[in-house]
Amino acid sequence: MIRVGIVGCSGYTAIECIKLLLRHPGVQIVAATSRQADGSTIADMHPILYQRLDLVVEDLSPSAIAQRCDVALCCLPHGASAPIVSAVLDAGCRVIDLSADYRLSTAELYKQWYGESHHDPGRLGQTPYGLPELFRESIRSAQLIANPGCYPTSVILPLAPLIRSGLIDLSNIIADSKSGVSGAGRTPKLGNLYPEVNEAFSAYAVGSHRHQPEMIDILCRFTGSQPKLIFTPHLVPMDRGILSTIYVQSRNSASASQLHECLGDFYRNEPFVRVRSNLPNTKFVANTNYCDICVRENGGWIILLSALDNLVKGASGAAVQCMNIMFDQAETAGLEA
Amino acid sequence: MIRVGIVGCSGYTAIECIKLLLRHPGVQIVAATSRQADGSTIADMHPILYQRLDLVVEDLSPSAIAQRCDVALCCLPHGASAPIVSAVLDAGCRVIDLSADYRLSTAELYKQWYGESHHDPGRLGQTPYGLPELFRESIRSAQLIANPGCYPTSVILPLAPLIRSGLIDLSNIIADSKSGVSGAGRTPKLGNLYPEVNEAFSAYAVGSHRHQPEMIDILCRFTGSQPKLIFTPHLVPMDRGILSTIYVQSRNSASASQLHECLGDFYRNEPFVRVRSNLPNTKFVANTNYCDICVRENGGWIILLSALDNLVKGASGAAVQCMNIMFDQAETAGLEA
Amino acid sequence: MIRVGIVGCSGYTAIECIKLLLRHPGVQIVAATSRQADGSTIADMHPILYQRLDLVVEDLSPSAIAQRCDVALCCLPHGASAPIVSAVLDAGCRVIDLSADYRLSTAELYKQWYGESHHDPGRLGQTPYGLPELFRESIRSAQLIANPGCYPTSVILPLAPLIRSGLIDLSNIIADSKSGVSGAGRTPKLGNLYPEVNEAFSAYAVGSHRHQPEMIDILCRFTGSQPKLIFTPHLVPMDRGILSTIYVQSRNSASASQLHECLGDFYRNEPFVRVRSNLPNTKFVANTNYCDICVRENGGWIILLSALDNLVKGASGAAVQCMNIMFDQAETAGLEA
Amino acid sequence: MIRVGIVGCSGYTAIECIKLLLRHPGVQIVAATSRQADGSTIADMHPILYQRLDLVVEDLSPSAIAQRCDVALCCLPHGASAPIVSAVLDAGCRVIDLSADYRLSTAELYKQWYGESHHDPGRLGQTPYGLPELFRESIRSAQLIANPGCYPTSVILPLAPLIRSGLIDLSNIIADSKSGVSGAGRTPKLGNLYPEVNEAFSAYAVGSHRHQPEMIDILCRFTGSQPKLIFTPHLVPMDRGILSTIYVQSRNSASASQLHECLGDFYRNEPFVRVRSNLPNTKFVANTNYCDICVRENGGWIILLSALDNLVKGASGAAVQCMNIMFDQAETAGLEA
Repeated sequence: MIRVGIVGCSGYTAIECIKLLLRHPGVQIVAATSRQADGSTIADMHPILYQRLDLVVEDLSPSAIAQRCDVALCCLPHGASAPIVSAVLDAGCRVIDLSADYRLSTAELYKQWYGESHHDPGRLGQTPYGLPELFRESIRSAQLIANPGCYPTSVILPLAPLIRSGLIDLSNIIADSKSGVSGAGRTPKLGNLYPEVNEAFSAYAVGSHRHQPEMIDILCRFTGSQPKLIFTPHLVPMDRGILSTIYVQSRNSASASQLHECLGDFYRNEPFVRVRSNLPNTKFVANTNYCDICVRENGGWIILLSALDNLVKGASGAAVQCMNIMFDQAETAGLEA
Repeated sequence: MIRVGIVGCSGYTAIECIKLLLRHPGVQIVAATSRQADGSTIADMHPILYQRLDLVVEDLSPSAIAQRCDVALCCLPHGASAPIVSAVLDAGCRVIDLSADYRLSTAELYKQWYGESHHDPGRLGQTPYGLPELFRESIRSAQLIANPGCYPTSVILPLAPLIRSGLIDLSNIIADSKSGVSGAGRTPKLGNLYPEVNEAFSAYAVGSHRHQPEMIDILCRFTGSQPKLIFTPHLVPMDRGILSTIYVQSRNSASASQLHECLGDFYRNEPFVRVRSNLPNTKFVANTNYCDICVRENGGWIILLSALDNLVKGASGAAVQCMNIMFDQAETAGLEA
Repeated sequence: MIRVGIVGCSGYTAIECIKLLLRHPGVQIVAATSRQADGSTIADMHPILYQRLDLVVEDLSPSAIAQRCDVALCCLPHGASAPIVSAVLDAGCRVIDLSADYRLSTAELYKQWYGESHHDPGRLGQTPYGLPELFRESIRSAQLIANPGCYPTSVILPLAPLIRSGLIDLSNIIADSKSGVSGAGRTPKLGNLYPEVNEAFSAYAVGSHRHQPEMIDILCRFTGSQPKLIFTPHLVPMDRGILSTIYVQSRNSASASQLHECLGDFYRNEPFVRVRSNLPNTKFVANTNYCDICVRENGGWIILLSALDNLVKGASGAAVQCMNIMFDQAETAGLEA
Repeated sequence: MIRVGIVGCSGYTAIECIKLLLRHPGVQIVAATSRQADGSTIADMHPILYQRLDLVVEDLSPSAIAQRCDVALCCLPHGASAPIVSAVLDAGCRVIDLSADYRLSTAELYKQWYGESHHDPGRLGQTPYGLPELFRESIRSAQLIANPGCYPTSVILPLAPLIRSGLIDLSNIIADSKSGVSGAGRTPKLGNLYPEVNEAFSAYAVGSHRHQPEMIDILCRFTGSQPKLIFTPHLVPMDRGILSTIYVQSRNSASASQLHECLGDFYRNEPFVRVRSNLPNTKFVANTNYCDICVRENGGWIILLSALDNLVKGASGAAVQCMNIMFDQAETAGLEA
């Protein structure tokens, strides 16, 4: 049994990890940590866990985490994550970090977009990005995984094979993405109150969202080419789900069906990517680890559409998938839809 | 023109007052106050007001409010309201208080349910309850109105005429009410975040909600009889609307149609109460000042159903209706659906 | 492997059965039938099944179903169900009928509430009601199970032990229930369109819903006493979930905590009933087979609150639970939350 | 008083017209027609109208409509509309047609996109498009107005001034639009059922939506230049609202602020277009006739964002605005937010 610790257990990605792991036959959840630990149980914090997981929330030190666990799923916010992650790693425990702290390749890029110096710059650029479809082999033996961002997963999966195959123009890529509200986290903020978000649709962080450099960085890491890509996120009044509508131009008059074929070939044996002929819908992938992809064309543009559940394939499901690879489990364990 | 001030302008009842008053031909909004005043405008606080109301939010003293306004619509939380309200009144300005501070008849009852001594006990029991359908004449000349609670309006309107007519048994009244989320206010709290409330339905404050004594107190004030009434509130994943399902037993074998007739007679000339034969739906009254009422029976019980918009007839619409009465305006001014 | 057929596979209970069975280690789905069969696959009908279940929808005769399956989960509408169910049974295949056709004890009651003569009256009163918590032993060896209605499950589970223990008064039971929209089925109707139901809350079928006699009939079957119970259903703008708020009066001054204890004792070893001290919420049980129950009191009334997922414990989960009992599987197989 | 008839009164645009007209001081609604007329009232069809509009729905002939009305607001589906509209016009009554039948400039284009020959081709190209901001003068004296499509309004308003000023490149315009569900109409269809649409986000009609040629045609009519524009519509789980995110490239290095300034100048005196510096949100314009517009830039692209209420500025509000112009009313009458 893999002994798993959930570090920072109060939020939506943490509870999603726990739900998935409870179905996993090869895993035991041995710790749930929070700085707000006050003797209450994980079921007090997440009432859906009543009679399902009997665990007191603790405020454990990194070394205590490392002693008790084979792997820590770290669900802390960016900035808060790196100091804990690096200490847990140094104490000898493998880590999957669901924050953004280890995703970018350089400390400069991190500083530029996150506004602070990185706590642990030495591990940047050395840490595999947890998209098994692109980086499976380096995930297998890694001590630390940078779990992908939700939007980037929905944008990178359709683009990566096409860019590597030279089928699309790198100079004009537009990703127009739409996400459910759970992506905004579980910290009370005016903007996330029900009456503010319900019956409301808007864009946010136009031109300034940190997932844009993440997309470009990882696509470049995988393909060797730096795309010119812009990204616009929007908030949808629903709990979970991301749909990305990606506008690209093909090279050498490659048609939509050639692009579809390229994607179908690339993902043929992947358990969690479905290249489909009908239009993706977030509801078709809700509560699953699937990413659905489809190709269309209109007026000289190719339109790639992708859908995933931001809390599963976009966060906690990806983490479990990586964990399965790291610990020689069936890659789909705990992730059966 | 009636010069109106909105005291405590950051929340949902305040913006609803403003929206209604902007349509009112006889009103000018001359002040919007908040302790958070920082030089920004009311449209910064409520973006729907852009180019519709040009007003800087101010942190005005009670005397400054009184100097500038004919009437203050006070949208502060209970407890915070009474000190301001009493000072504004003392400075010579009429007030409609949308908080609960002046609704109950005695300081003892207030202490028992709100946990604190009342700041201004002398005005309790002297202050008209702002339901024009029951207390129109005392509203007309009042300096201060206690604007009704949203749930109480939905429960008192169907019950009051029936109790006064002696048609129902006072010993077994059950009000099972359901409200949209705007009723919980605009202060960020975990429980009101979109992903907590969406796709969720639950009861809350069972046996302990402060609107239960308000319902009993006001029904007693109107009818002279103290009903034995219990109230259970529930939260519905929608912005606005209250539906109350009220179970009563008739006296002397009065039938549902007799009760319907009694209600129809009582409200015949009321512009905002519709006694109907089809089942009420919050959507039929959304963004209006109507309260719809219907009577059914089942297995020896009479079931009264009522629906209203908690922010309009349940709060700000009622306040405007009272203001119209106080200032000799057409009672429906600003409230046309 | 149990060979399962889904009879009438186009609706919400059918797809929910399929989703649960795909996780079940001891089951193979061998047929999906529909009168609308036109050569398309089950994934064409339910796009979430793409690459998950490879099955052509067929218009199979009862004898063909019986030949191919060990058990048929019949998801047809009431009225349409009995003729098929009886023919499948006669051909030697066990059936779990998710319609209402075999729930009531007599053909008279069926005629009275469903308006038609029953097609197969001989099996009425002989067919176990598929609530394992109350009728586990008779389910084990049955050829046919009448799968419970969604509302009745939420009302019967809290009431049955209390009535049998003589703790509550039989003459005044009020069940005020609220359901998500999936309970209304997948047939296009004006009243179920998104813009009609969204941001809307209403009661429906007040005094005339067919689940009221079902509740009374089954409670009487289990306890030997006929309660006087009224039931009011409401529609909540959400996909799934039922919350029932049930008002009862205790006998011999039994307190809420005594009732809580009685329920706790009765359901102690049940895998899917959680008697809790905090208030139930449909979101705590969404996509699970749990029914959460809690007891409160207010002004002389005891208030029982229960929550379940209408498509899981209220329909397809209950069917799988019954199937597990009938075929000596672990009762929780396929139903892990 | 302008005597107005609502032709085809059962849908969402019809009820929205009625709601707006009830607030209009210069209008009397004198007829509501439907082929389904069966003696019932408009309040039977739309329960929100109870005690607000007392009118029996009638199946009136075009000449009867013309006899009774000064203007008909025609809310029929495309295809069904032109035969009625032309007959009502021929009988001497002015018409505002909310369908798509008279929007395109030529019968060829209509045939190409709507699949049928146009019933009344002579009026194509002669009929003003009902966007007062672009075509006010031709609206004033018109007998027939082609009321704009909801998506086109949200896309044309931000683009038209920029194209006419030569500030943007015509060869690469991408409109990624998102709409609430009321845009899909009130006819029961599987795809619009609550459980299909709720918690779901998807694109539809990619590359084939009829509003794409409408946008191009009208932009060309206003600016004299034919833009190369592609349009992708998406469905948002909410009642009302459209947000369009429009990607353009500026000419001659014009900056976002220059484009903002151009739009601000163009719409300075328009009562219903708000060029803003903060990001639009459908909730800021819900139930109003406003279209909010904002300009951003990112990586060489200019991003225009616009928001409106698809049933008001996107349909019925626009119709009332045109009617006001046609009948010398204050342009904002009935449209005060």
